[in-house]
Amino acid sequence: MNTFGTIFRIHIFGESHGPAVGILIDGCPAGMDIDADMFSADLNRRKGGVQKGTTPRAEPDIPVFLSGVFNNKTTGAPLTIIFENTNTRSQDYEKQREIPRPGHADFVAQEKYKGMQDYRGGGHFSGRLTVALVAAGVIAKNILARRNIHCKASIIEIAGETNIEKGLQKAIDAKDSVGGIVDCHITGLPVGLGEPFFNSVESLLSHLVFSIPAIKGIEFGAGFSAAKMFGSEHNDPLLNKEGKTSTNHAGGIVGGITNGNEVNFKVVVKPTSSTPQKQTSLNLATGKPEVFSIKGRHDLCIALRVPVVLEAAAACVMADLLFINDQQLHYS
Amino acid sequence: MNTFGTIFRIHIFGESHGPAVGILIDGCPAGMDIDADMFSADLNRRKGGVQKGTTPRAEPDIPVFLSGVFNNKTTGAPLTIIFENTNTRSQDYEKQREIPRPGHADFVAQEKYKGMQDYRGGGHFSGRLTVALVAAGVIAKNILARRNIHCKASIIEIAGETNIEKGLQKAIDAKDSVGGIVDCHITGLPVGLGEPFFNSVESLLSHLVFSIPAIKGIEFGAGFSAAKMFGSEHNDPLLNKEGKTSTNHAGGIVGGITNGNEVNFKVVVKPTSSTPQKQTSLNLATGKPEVFSIKGRHDLCIALRVPVVLEAAAACVMADLLFINDQQLHYS
Amino acid sequence: MNTFGTIFRIHIFGESHGPAVGILIDGCPAGMDIDADMFSADLNRRKGGVQKGTTPRAEPDIPVFLSGVFNNKTTGAPLTIIFENTNTRSQDYEKQREIPRPGHADFVAQEKYKGMQDYRGGGHFSGRLTVALVAAGVIAKNILARRNIHCKASIIEIAGETNIEKGLQKAIDAKDSVGGIVDCHITGLPVGLGEPFFNSVESLLSHLVFSIPAIKGIEFGAGFSAAKMFGSEHNDPLLNKEGKTSTNHAGGIVGGITNGNEVNFKVVVKPTSSTPQKQTSLNLATGKPEVFSIKGRHDLCIALRVPVVLEAAAACVMADLLFINDQQLHYS
Amino acid sequence: MNTFGTIFRIHIFGESHGPAVGILIDGCPAGMDIDADMFSADLNRRKGGVQKGTTPRAEPDIPVFLSGVFNNKTTGAPLTIIFENTNTRSQDYEKQREIPRPGHADFVAQEKYKGMQDYRGGGHFSGRLTVALVAAGVIAKNILARRNIHCKASIIEIAGETNIEKGLQKAIDAKDSVGGIVDCHITGLPVGLGEPFFNSVESLLSHLVFSIPAIKGIEFGAGFSAAKMFGSEHNDPLLNKEGKTSTNHAGGIVGGITNGNEVNFKVVVKPTSSTPQKQTSLNLATGKPEVFSIKGRHDLCIALRVPVVLEAAAACVMADLLFINDQQLHYS
Repeated sequence: MNTFGTIFRIHIFGESHGPAVGILIDGCPAGMDIDADMFSADLNRRKGGVQKGTTPRAEPDIPVFLSGVFNNKTTGAPLTIIFENTNTRSQDYEKQREIPRPGHADFVAQEKYKGMQDYRGGGHFSGRLTVALVAAGVIAKNILARRNIHCKASIIEIAGETNIEKGLQKAIDAKDSVGGIVDCHITGLPVGLGEPFFNSVESLLSHLVFSIPAIKGIEFGAGFSAAKMFGSEHNDPLLNKEGKTSTNHAGGIVGGITNGNEVNFKVVVKPTSSTPQKQTSLNLATGKPEVFSIKGRHDLCIALRVPVVLEAAAACVMADLLFINDQQLHYS
Repeated sequence: MNTFGTIFRIHIFGESHGPAVGILIDGCPAGMDIDADMFSADLNRRKGGVQKGTTPRAEPDIPVFLSGVFNNKTTGAPLTIIFENTNTRSQDYEKQREIPRPGHADFVAQEKYKGMQDYRGGGHFSGRLTVALVAAGVIAKNILARRNIHCKASIIEIAGETNIEKGLQKAIDAKDSVGGIVDCHITGLPVGLGEPFFNSVESLLSHLVFSIPAIKGIEFGAGFSAAKMFGSEHNDPLLNKEGKTSTNHAGGIVGGITNGNEVNFKVVVKPTSSTPQKQTSLNLATGKPEVFSIKGRHDLCIALRVPVVLEAAAACVMADLLFINDQQLHYS
Repeated sequence: MNTFGTIFRIHIFGESHGPAVGILIDGCPAGMDIDADMFSADLNRRKGGVQKGTTPRAEPDIPVFLSGVFNNKTTGAPLTIIFENTNTRSQDYEKQREIPRPGHADFVAQEKYKGMQDYRGGGHFSGRLTVALVAAGVIAKNILARRNIHCKASIIEIAGETNIEKGLQKAIDAKDSVGGIVDCHITGLPVGLGEPFFNSVESLLSHLVFSIPAIKGIEFGAGFSAAKMFGSEHNDPLLNKEGKTSTNHAGGIVGGITNGNEVNFKVVVKPTSSTPQKQTSLNLATGKPEVFSIKGRHDLCIALRVPVVLEAAAACVMADLLFINDQQLHYS
Repeated sequence: MNTFGTIFRIHIFGESHGPAVGILIDGCPAGMDIDADMFSADLNRRKGGVQKGTTPRAEPDIPVFLSGVFNNKTTGAPLTIIFENTNTRSQDYEKQREIPRPGHADFVAQEKYKGMQDYRGGGHFSGRLTVALVAAGVIAKNILARRNIHCKASIIEIAGETNIEKGLQKAIDAKDSVGGIVDCHITGLPVGLGEPFFNSVESLLSHLVFSIPAIKGIEFGAGFSAAKMFGSEHNDPLLNKEGKTSTNHAGGIVGGITNGNEVNFKVVVKPTSSTPQKQTSLNLATGKPEVFSIKGRHDLCIALRVPVVLEAAAACVMADLLFINDQQLHYS
């Protein structure tokens, strides 16, 4: 239930205000160079704080290698990477508890775990855990890079604007949070990754992508606009024996299998659940509606921090598919 | 790789022109009434042929129970349901082979399986296999119905038109295939299904939904329109202790967990790859582009046949999540 | 629950008196020659009937390929092999039902499936299903043979006698069933298969081996006799860089990993549960003990039919481990 | 590959001389009381040092809860327990490296991981990691205890002697390590746990049991002695409707399913690989045989420390099977 992958397998754990968050990775090959520095670039991209509209938790985010690393190389044994939680203010979470925040997991966690969940800062549901996904992504990207495969994601729309600055200004002006759309491209993939039906590339990518908090939709290639296209328009004509097509409405995936073109997908990120606006929710103690507002500084647009997490998810899926595919080279 | 589910587990097999297509289901409880009649309604919905724009393969689609059934009851042992292929015309598939059809899996199958795939009628990639998914869906729906959980999907848009007839007429007029959008609602779910991160309800639903051929996008609740909403607008205010919210922009899933509201998602179905229009592809034998057209009658809009398959996928996911959840009742 | 393997994955189904028994195999590479003939030798070894002490069900045991085969080659798609049940006499199973046969699964099946199980001839618990394991074994052996890996099992003891004839005569004289010990050797394995801890080679082999009905113990290398050895005696001194050791008390597995020597293990097969002798059991209808005897002809020593099934299990495990291992070749 | 279980799932990690060893547990229900004290008894049993023949690493073995615990209760989120490694002497492991120790994983690790493994103190192959299994066992036992299910293992033979003291004296006199046999009983189990074939109770127990270093054989009930029994003798006559039998040669498992009697199995533990005796191995640097002896104090009989680890393995399997079984209560 808490595992993703077949050969390159990840398991996530931790809570926002517990001792640490982390990831356990099985199937990482032995002999990969690894040190804290190689994680910096991606960890910094996740942090936000530079751009307006983001409010970073000012933590150093230093990866600690609990297992699977020796002499700055992966050993081939299970690789555990943790990030200690140092910046956990002792707020009055008890008080907040009575009023589940709309859009947050407060209510479902309370019901599912019968009140036993760690509710501080979202607990295990916190976006804080994406730091662990980013770390797994760094490992996966490293595996892919050796085969010249690269994942690149970027924001393409904020608050309905393709100009990021303009979209953020809308949020600032409205004193409200906003959503956005993130685009991801994977280049260099061979033809033939994925399996028909249950392990189609779309199935696996969407599976891991929807593990990222706040993502509520995904589309491959032409995606939802395909609903308005004719077949003769949507079909991508084949140009050469390597699979190159003149258009890429399929997003690089046909029959669930990579077809030799760039894999491309877009996701929608909902507006940050924590908005500066006043909101109404039910006070579970009194059983009555209550108007309240969320304290503290929060990201106005969490979508800004999603690209590097999306790349991580894409990279983990592709590293696993490559390893699965390798076995198929060894018959005949 | 060819398995979906943790407790209620399905495995699919077969080719369009092989002896049969089928599904093996583990984890189906013993004692469920089962006979061929209970599959008729859903199998007929998949067939099409009644509505204009669909061209059914005129096969009887009679489920044969190879294992797991005794005296018209499930036994609790692995349940295998097959559909024999009877209507497989011996067309000249060899000739077609040289020119991979755009939008079809012809090219990727050729590359992935090094020419060993059964290429007749799409082989294992054929939409024919969705008959097996529908059969699994009938079993899953039966499990859900005992708890008053129901899945219902319907077409909401064809060729950009919300009037189905009008959309189909567009296809007929243009002599081209068209796509559409299908909407699915799941009612009666308890709060608490799904797991944070890797087994979020969105992750599992999208995983299985993207196993259905031709689906290229999925969105939950407000979906892509969330990108243009403010947080105060998107958040669903909680109304009562059962989780009921006044709006349902989250599509019934928060933090990856069902929240007591209807689960709602939409998918986009690309236009049928087989279009009556002339198309260009590469002739792999000559290495040159070639204009050709696809012979025979095909669905102008495959989306029309998707709703019952989508319900089946949703039902299989939910049956599995319910069984997983049951264990959590047994502590404390 | 009904799946074994990570890349080369098998799923078993069927009942002794249902329409068929079979196996679904995922991860079989495309391009392997396959026809019914290649299964004959192993299927005949399973049948018994030649040797005294075995009573074959006189069925032809012809494999039918429901999926994954085209033009006498595997396609790479899920491979389904079934064996139709033709020789199922309509005995009065209802009467027998009241008295669970000692040593058989009658009682546990009745309780687990609440009386819904197919009880005819043991139903899904029948040794009949080992025909499906043998079929999977033929596929796996074929994969291994290309790398010069071979599995060979043979009877080494019957009824306490190392002379098979003598052991069987004991059974015939006593008019009672007897057990035996089967030895299995796997040659040609590379160093490095298996994983530390949960996927040790011993873990995986024993997992699948204990799926074979009637096996109640397994030991690797020196096995239970290691309990009486000194460390200096049990340790296998290394002779060369390929891993060859002068003795093989470890059975070719150290730290859960193949060490370059022959993998060797022994299993014990309990006496056939169906014995000609009178026995006592509880009549579930009357609630009273009842003396009865099992009708019909049965194997006096089921162990005689186990070697080919044991080879099949060993081959399936090793094919899977080889495929898993292949990915490790592709880094560095 | 590094995961065991379906609902109650464990993942192990760490190296003997790395920062920590640990276990990640999914599927632990919310609301279980948890603190370091509840682990003490079992952790102490694993330590040895009290009895002659054992040489404990004098470490405190204090469980640290990295995730899944809040206010001394499990939260239902993934539970991570680590044990920091504090007593890791900086020996000259480099020198030892050239000569793989017989019976140890030195050689296979070197080959499998191409020299990248953490070789200090056995690295990931170290018996040190069983501390993590014991911790998982404490959690699993707690789950079982609520249903009055208990696992109890004990030494029944050392160096061929049923008197433990006498067996150990043999080792001391011979200045050599010795092996032993450990017996395990599980009481209070319901009828019906396990699945036919691939998830038989014997399959699952043996799978996890062979994850414990140094175990080389397992037998259920009468085990290997069944090879010398007649069927009429081995069969356990049913006494009552709860499944109680007058004998228990089946070890409480028939057809792979628990039958309402005590589950019983025995394992053989090979002599400790590290013996005080001089041994010969290959020096990989020189390519020549070399006589050497292992430095430091080591357990003369590692079997003495196995019982609590065996109980842990048994408890983890049974907790998982119970959770799987619970879903079956919810139909009909």
